[in-house]
Amino acid sequence: MKILLTVAYDGTNYAGWQRQENAISVQQSLEEALANLLGQPIKLSAASRTDAGVHALGQKAAFLIEHMPIPLDRFPQALNKFTADDIVVREAKQVSDEFNPRFDAKHKTYRYQIYNARLPSPLERRYSAFVPRHLDTEKMRQAAKKIVGTHDFAAFCAAGSSAKTTVRTIFDCDITKNGDMIQMLVSGNAFLYNMVRIIAGTLVYIGMGKIEAEDISNIIASKDRPQAGKTMPPEGLTLMDIFY
Amino acid sequence: MKILLTVAYDGTNYAGWQRQENAISVQQSLEEALANLLGQPIKLSAASRTDAGVHALGQKAAFLIEHMPIPLDRFPQALNKFTADDIVVREAKQVSDEFNPRFDAKHKTYRYQIYNARLPSPLERRYSAFVPRHLDTEKMRQAAKKIVGTHDFAAFCAAGSSAKTTVRTIFDCDITKNGDMIQMLVSGNAFLYNMVRIIAGTLVYIGMGKIEAEDISNIIASKDRPQAGKTMPPEGLTLMDIFY
Repeated sequence: MKILLTVAYDGTNYAGWQRQENAISVQQSLEEALANLLGQPIKLSAASRTDAGVHALGQKAAFLIEHMPIPLDRFPQALNKFTADDIVVREAKQVSDEFNPRFDAKHKTYRYQIYNARLPSPLERRYSAFVPRHLDTEKMRQAAKKIVGTHDFAAFCAAGSSAKTTVRTIFDCDITKNGDMIQMLVSGNAFLYNMVRIIAGTLVYIGMGKIEAEDISNIIASKDRPQAGKTMPPEGLTLMDIFY
Repeated sequence: MKILLTVAYDGTNYAGWQRQENAISVQQSLEEALANLLGQPIKLSAASRTDAGVHALGQKAAFLIEHMPIPLDRFPQALNKFTADDIVVREAKQVSDEFNPRFDAKHKTYRYQIYNARLPSPLERRYSAFVPRHLDTEKMRQAAKKIVGTHDFAAFCAAGSSAKTTVRTIFDCDITKNGDMIQMLVSGNAFLYNMVRIIAGTLVYIGMGKIEAEDISNIIASKDRPQAGKTMPPEGLTLMDIFY
């Protein structure tokens, strides 16, 4: 049988989701917890290979097991006894053996948080990027709306991507502000490498007045990475949810 | 001249404010940053000796210096280059040489955060206590209001306190809920050892239905520590502000 887990983690101390040599990944840490609980090696297959330092509240990861010895509704709490405090399994459910958490995903939502104040806050620094320059959130909101739709997002894709096409559909991109925290929530059918962090960096340039909100359509049309803003740092990014 | 600093810190990795042997304190870390910036040993005197793991957004700490070589409005940014990321100096201003940040404080505000959900969140765990049992926030709010006033808070004082009197005045105590996060904000003229964490623990018992909201007056009147709730863990507590 195949089990699909919903996983939350604080990515600060991990070299990203994917298992690698010489660095601790979320995948390795969670596979070890699963092996300790289940008494057999477990191989996880995740929906999204989040980068080093990126967080998740709704990562999805699946594994195959012949016989599941623990009722699924009690499985998260049993497994969380074996995980580090910065990884929490929120749900476990059975899916078909053909289910692929990466390729069957229809819709993903990411959050990017920007702490916008004169001085940083030690209580926000792990889960947001710090931007001391004043940002015009109304302009950022206007520009965010222009990203919505099906576009070739080549200008918002980091070099070294192996994607066959750079066309993606963004369903929604919204900016809200709560005190000194600016939050971007973006939903799409799929995302290119570093795409959310480059969208956030472009909206930050628009908020600063370095780029006009109307220019975002030209930046998309240019398909030229240097036209867009900087790649924002990983700590502001959280994978919120994946829908199938 | 005497300089008063407003200091924010993530207390997770510190053994509290106060300097001690064999453990890193916020005081030691900040005094070292000051010595590195100013080229002379600096001794800080703080308003509140926060415990290990407790956070601050508005701690106050003062030091004497013969000549201040940096303009005060630029001092926080200059000093923050020498502090660890989890300590941020927010403001520096001159006060009279007789000013005592501890004894001249008229009013302090603390926040206690409780993450109330079935499973913990890895992104909230550093700055809140996790309580999985359902809490009735309306009952907690009613009980919080009964704490307001001048009372003998002996029942809310940890053993080993050297306070001459256990009478304190609480100006306000309020409970709000935002998603899964319950927040208690409490202001008073001064607080006994562990008092905020014991008030939070008592309100948690009331939220669970272990104690009735009306019983809080009897608990105060009893002056008996075991009548009140448990001392909640340090990570939920943040020293928000101190007024003079």
